[in-house]
Amino acid sequence: MISGAERINRINPFYVMELLARARELERQGRHVVHMEIGEPDFPTPQRVINAGMKAIRSGDVKYTPAMGLPELRSAIAAWYRKRYDVALSSDRIVVTPGASGALLLALGALVNPGDEIMLGDPAYPCNRNFVCLFDGDPKLVPVDATTDFQLSCQLIQRNWTEKTCGALIASPSNPTGTQIAPTELKAIVRWIDARSGFLLSDEIYHGLEYDERAVSALEMTDNVFVINSFSKYFGMTGWRIGWLVVPDDWIERIEKLAQNIFIAAPTHSQYAAVAAFDPETEKETEERRCEFRRRRDYLHGQLLRLGFRIPSRPRGAFYIYADCSRFSRDSSRFATELLEEAAVAVTPGKDFGINAAEHYLRFAYTTSIENLKEGVRRLEKFLDSRSRLSVDGAAD
Amino acid sequence: MISGAERINRINPFYVMELLARARELERQGRHVVHMEIGEPDFPTPQRVINAGMKAIRSGDVKYTPAMGLPELRSAIAAWYRKRYDVALSSDRIVVTPGASGALLLALGALVNPGDEIMLGDPAYPCNRNFVCLFDGDPKLVPVDATTDFQLSCQLIQRNWTEKTCGALIASPSNPTGTQIAPTELKAIVRWIDARSGFLLSDEIYHGLEYDERAVSALEMTDNVFVINSFSKYFGMTGWRIGWLVVPDDWIERIEKLAQNIFIAAPTHSQYAAVAAFDPETEKETEERRCEFRRRRDYLHGQLLRLGFRIPSRPRGAFYIYADCSRFSRDSSRFATELLEEAAVAVTPGKDFGINAAEHYLRFAYTTSIENLKEGVRRLEKFLDSRSRLSVDGAAD
Repeated sequence: MISGAERINRINPFYVMELLARARELERQGRHVVHMEIGEPDFPTPQRVINAGMKAIRSGDVKYTPAMGLPELRSAIAAWYRKRYDVALSSDRIVVTPGASGALLLALGALVNPGDEIMLGDPAYPCNRNFVCLFDGDPKLVPVDATTDFQLSCQLIQRNWTEKTCGALIASPSNPTGTQIAPTELKAIVRWIDARSGFLLSDEIYHGLEYDERAVSALEMTDNVFVINSFSKYFGMTGWRIGWLVVPDDWIERIEKLAQNIFIAAPTHSQYAAVAAFDPETEKETEERRCEFRRRRDYLHGQLLRLGFRIPSRPRGAFYIYADCSRFSRDSSRFATELLEEAAVAVTPGKDFGINAAEHYLRFAYTTSIENLKEGVRRLEKFLDSRSRLSVDGAAD
Repeated sequence: MISGAERINRINPFYVMELLARARELERQGRHVVHMEIGEPDFPTPQRVINAGMKAIRSGDVKYTPAMGLPELRSAIAAWYRKRYDVALSSDRIVVTPGASGALLLALGALVNPGDEIMLGDPAYPCNRNFVCLFDGDPKLVPVDATTDFQLSCQLIQRNWTEKTCGALIASPSNPTGTQIAPTELKAIVRWIDARSGFLLSDEIYHGLEYDERAVSALEMTDNVFVINSFSKYFGMTGWRIGWLVVPDDWIERIEKLAQNIFIAAPTHSQYAAVAAFDPETEKETEERRCEFRRRRDYLHGQLLRLGFRIPSRPRGAFYIYADCSRFSRDSSRFATELLEEAAVAVTPGKDFGINAAEHYLRFAYTTSIENLKEGVRRLEKFLDSRSRLSVDGAAD
């Protein structure tokens, strides 16, 4: 028997995958399932992006690009920072990566020594802490709640920072809560970590999908930060597997060396396609989608509150609502399973995002049409009704 | 200052990149460069593969696939093993990855603990040992030479295996030497490592590009092996970033968990495109290319011998010749630089592949047309002539 690496035992699978598999099974049996578990936009890739991708393939000349990415794409990303955030950024600091996954891999591979403690909020996107485990670091999960909008605050970071802590990972807008870090808080975090020579990794993959106020980039506050972004969400390019990483000036060489070795380069046609993501016509399309996501957020947020879910922090971005279902169940995983089996509505249980009160929470993704959401809400209401009747009946026994 | 991970210091950049950058600069200045440094086929992607890729993009429905890959692609790969190697393989054991890089990442992430010793031959493809460093393992470089065809032999593995050794990484056909492991030797290696509960990782990314005899897969000998393959080389799909990993039965679950976390899935359109790589019409095309590569091998091999290079082991596959230039220079890196500057011929110095006699060797890649190779040989001959005249003149001084 080959024994293998111990880190494997510290990495969790996505529990929602079982649920998704069961949902697909129900669909094969002919049932219509309302999917509110999927963290992927339902819109197709914008047409100009598709056209650019097709053009890049047509000739068959699909060769490796430089490890850091196509120069024109790196420039286009730099221009986007200038336009959107008023941040002047040398394109040398931008690395094109195979999805945000590739960016996390590069950044954490370059930053984390075995045994290093890296701070993250709980709940948070599970891959982020699993990447820390991949490099034998120690993810230090700090429970966050509505008092800090489910985000790490400067105070929480200060309180939990130890001698072994090397850095912190933040995400705004956040998966699963959709909350954002306020600019003043972000500035305080940047300063505090910088003074300790720690690193800050800012996951900004949901930037662009903000519905109340603009999400600020950590790059507006400092050059000494690692920023992760992706074409998957706002630009609708999940399956293309393309994202980017911005690194501090003095990290460019080390990161390039690592990129050469661990992925050679991001997919070539995806890179050509991504250049068209910054086309003004594409921007119109992505902005329309953002408005549609906001309508969905408004609708679903209102309906979940009406049905009796508690939503302690306002979801301002991404496409998720993290709702407390403890009024209905003390076990959100069981609740999610029953909801799927009885009402054919799929949602993600809290335990996919951490251990902090996870059994009270469900993540609803509004990555489906308003009609589907309405149907989901209708089914959910009926499901809750039948449960409350059951418990009344049970009480009468 | 952020200190970062120590592993970064153990990972080398590709030295050839500097040379390639200089070659591009010469080209911008108007000089014609003969490229024999590039490890990438010069042929375009086969037409049916392109068509399938375009079809997958056209609708814009480019969503994530399952982490382990499209079921139809996994089945097609399994069928290829049946047809080509007479190996019956459940498609459950096949993981589709973002290039062979993704496969190495998965396999070594799952297998290597910090401090574990992993055995590799020297010279060998540098990324492989750098992946071991990425997981804080200790690459144990065993010098190999013509006595074992520049491959690890069972005897070498036995002699160098210590208590800290956990596994070995072999590659056949090999980069940079093009040599293959003989089936009897491979069988002995498999048995010996298996008896010690070590792991064997077999890099088979140049399979299909064999010119003398068929390369055997480690899967013909055992199920207890990790096999890495890629669509990049034989199937001409470098920029598409798609490969695969075959794992033992009892590793499927762990590898799936890791794949979900570290890359979500391989690029979707590349996966659809890759299905067409197994089309009989595509096979005709790739077979024709194989014959063309053989013609180039035969030509370049003969010419390098004629010019006085020593080629201690016959290059049987891939598209490389590892030639000893010590008759002309004691510093192959300097030789490569001078050859580029004076004769506009680009080759890769041995130091990109290890430290074992690296200063005596150059890697010639025949990834360019016979005409270009002829021009390269003509320039190389002139370059050598002028050097020998210089040294005679020098001796006369």
